Formats: sequence, C-alpha cells, structure tokens
Amino acid sequence: MTQERRGRGRPARRAADEGPGARERILQAARDEFAERGYDKTTMRGIARAAGVDAALVHHYFGTKDDVFAAAIEVSFEPAMVVPQILGQGPAGIGERLARFFIGVWENPATRAPLLAIIRSALTHEAAAKVLRGFVLRRLLERVAGELDVPDPRFRAELAASHMVGIAILRYVIRVEPLATADPEEIIRIVAPTLQRYLTESDPDSPATSGGAGTGS
Amino acid sequence: MTQERRGRGRPARRAADEGPGARERILQAARDEFAERGYDKTTMRGIARAAGVDAALVHHYFGTKDDVFAAAIEVSFEPAMVVPQILGQGPAGIGERLARFFIGVWENPATRAPLLAIIRSALTHEAAAKVLRGFVLRRLLERVAGELDVPDPRFRAELAASHMVGIAILRYVIRVEPLATADPEEIIRIVAPTLQRYLTESDPDSPATSGGAGTGS
Repeated sequence: MTQERRGRGRPARRAADEGPGARERILQAARDEFAERGYDKTTMRGIARAAGVDAALVHHYFGTKDDVFAAAIEVSFEPAMVVPQILGQGPAGIGERLARFFIGVWENPATRAPLLAIIRSALTHEAAAKVLRGFVLRRLLERVAGELDVPDPRFRAELAASHMVGIAILRYVIRVEPLATADPEEIIRIVAPTLQRYLTESDPDSPATSGGAGTGS
Repeated sequence: MTQERRGRGRPARRAADEGPGARERILQAARDEFAERGYDKTTMRGIARAAGVDAALVHHYFGTKDDVFAAAIEVSFEPAMVVPQILGQGPAGIGERLARFFIGVWENPATRAPLLAIIRSALTHEAAAKVLRGFVLRRLLERVAGELDVPDPRFRAELAASHMVGIAILRYVIRVEPLATADPEEIIRIVAPTLQRYLTESDPDSPATSGGAGTGS
C-alpha cells in the first residue's frame, strides 16, 4: 500500500529498488521462488527479498500474489513471441513447429523448472489453477485459436495443448521409460501429425486427409 | 512386524479386523485417505483408523505406505480387467475403446477422485512418482505394449497415455473451457484416431494411412 509515497516513514531501501531493471529482477525472483517453493509457500515478502527490493515495490508493480504468479507464468510462455513464431508461417507444418517449441521449452532446464512449478501449483491449489486458467491458458490458447481455420478452434487448441502437457508430465515428472529418455526429435516426429490434425483439419475424425471414407463415424 | 503372532501383548482389536472384507476395507480407506489428504499427509495409522482395523493389519496385508499406495492405484486402474477389455478385441477400434475407457474412468467421480490424488501426489512427491512409475504405469503399459504390433510398443503406449493424462488435467483439474464442459463423445471422437495411430500404425509419421503400411496388421 501507499507505494506512491516514498521516503519518510518507510523502511530504508537499497538503491536496487530503483531503475528499469527492478521489474525484471522481481519477475525472475518470482519464477525462482514459485519454482522452488511452490505456489502455497511463496510469499510477496520472499519474492521481494530474493529480488533485493522492498515488498511494497512488488505490490506496486504487480498487485497481488496471484498477479505476480500470472506475470511469472506469462514470462515463461511469452505468448507475444510464441504465437507469431508458431502460427506466423501458415498452417503447413504448424504441428511440427508447435511440438518443437513445446519440447524445446521443456528440454531447457531454465524454462522447465518454472513450468513444472506452475503445473504442480495448479494441480494442488485451486487459486493457482484459477490463475493459470484465466490469465494464461485462456490468453495463449485464444490467440492460437484465433489464427486457426477449423471448427471449435479453442477446443482444438486445447486438445493439442493437453497432449503436450501430458507428455511433459510423463517424460519430465513421472519419468516413465522409454519416454523419459527418448530422443526429442523422435517425439516431435510422432506427435507433430497429431497436432497438425487437431489444428488444421476440419474433420479430425478421419486420420486420412483425403476425401474418401474416414475411419470413424 | 510380527504380524503372524496375534493375541498376547498386542493391543486389543475389534472384530472388524478379521474376515475376508478387511483387505477391501483397507484398500477403500487408503484410496479415500490418499484422495483426501494427498500422499504426504496420509499415514498407515490414518488408513487403519478409517478402515476400522489395527495398523498392524495394514502392514500385514500391504507392507509399507508405498505398497498401500501402489495397491490403491492398482485398484483404480484394474489392469487385469482393463487390458483384455481394450485389447482383447483386436487392433480395429482400439483407439476408440481406449479413449472411451479413460474418459469413462474420469467422468465417474468415484474413480476420478483417487486418480486425481495419484497424479497430484506423483507431481509433488518423488516417492509417489516412483511408485506410480514402478508399479503401475510400467505394469499397465507393459501389458498394453505386449499386445501391440508396432515398433517401440511401450513408447507408443506411453504417448497414448500421455494424451489421456493431459486431457484429464486440462479438463478436470485446470478446467479450461470449452474442454472442461465438452461432450465426452466429442472428445472420444476426435482423440480416438490419434490413439489408433499410435497403437497400430507402423509409421505414425504420415497421418494418411494410405501407402503400403496398413493399419491393422
């Protein structure tokens, strides 16, 4: 509170509070804290301490703990970058680009840790699930869905996302073999056609793209 | 320890301890306890109390807490029933049967709660992840894989499982819309061809079944 009024009556601050780097330091600290402690045990005070700033500055920049959590998630996904990167090149090959992007994020320990923290938090705390649902999945998926030319584009985007989330859990968290040590390229090769089908085919009921009789129905 | 010797020196027991129903009552209590409290906070003593038996009887039937956890998981999956039900009818339609089975398990609140508890526990406690990895996924997936006529059958079975796990998380835990309220039949319809491809096609790289490699084999 009263973040605007500085100086008098406030605890002494370090110079680190100021400057354009503070916001980024807070976000980085938040990601580390959420990744390490989980949603429940992370506090605004702890984030501030890790970032070397006053807790009031964290409030000033982000608002509540949920808002910091959402911002930390957003940095991990970077939808502003992700969406054009995957969708910008048109529908051909979109399945492979999406698979490659997700696997790449998960293969990188620096981005894997915060994502794991997010998923763990969302699975165990309704407050975190709500943030994930509202701020990110919705925003990210809606933007992806907005670019798709299929019926129920959000549903399709969620099906694609669900597959990538499930692979992440079995490969990186539960670590079932052989999936846990499979070559990332092998995973991308097999999963890409699935994502391609969900995101671009108007009748995903038939695995054959052709006109002829599909499998189901 | 010394479960064999009863009577002298042991705390008084209730009649409920005996009889063929005790094992089932313990399992049911274990599922409830794990579902309600999570892996970490569930104790052998708490399970015994909920089942109305002596803690020594829980040890006698199951061994350690991890063993009880594994047994509770196994009851949820019931691999002995699942595997013939899904695989027994040959490769045609296996994708739809698997999708239908998984969605059915998740749609039923009685089986959903323990499964959620298992996944939550495995995501937050390495001990629980190890049990899930070792006892169940391996056993269930190995049996499924043993019936498949594709290269890397376990890898394929895990990819199929990963999709169902991811759908469960997005639909039932994080509850993103429209997936959260989608008609189960619609999910089955779209996902079945993916599972079919993973479990039966020798070259899942090409979404079109055409070419030489037939589906069934």
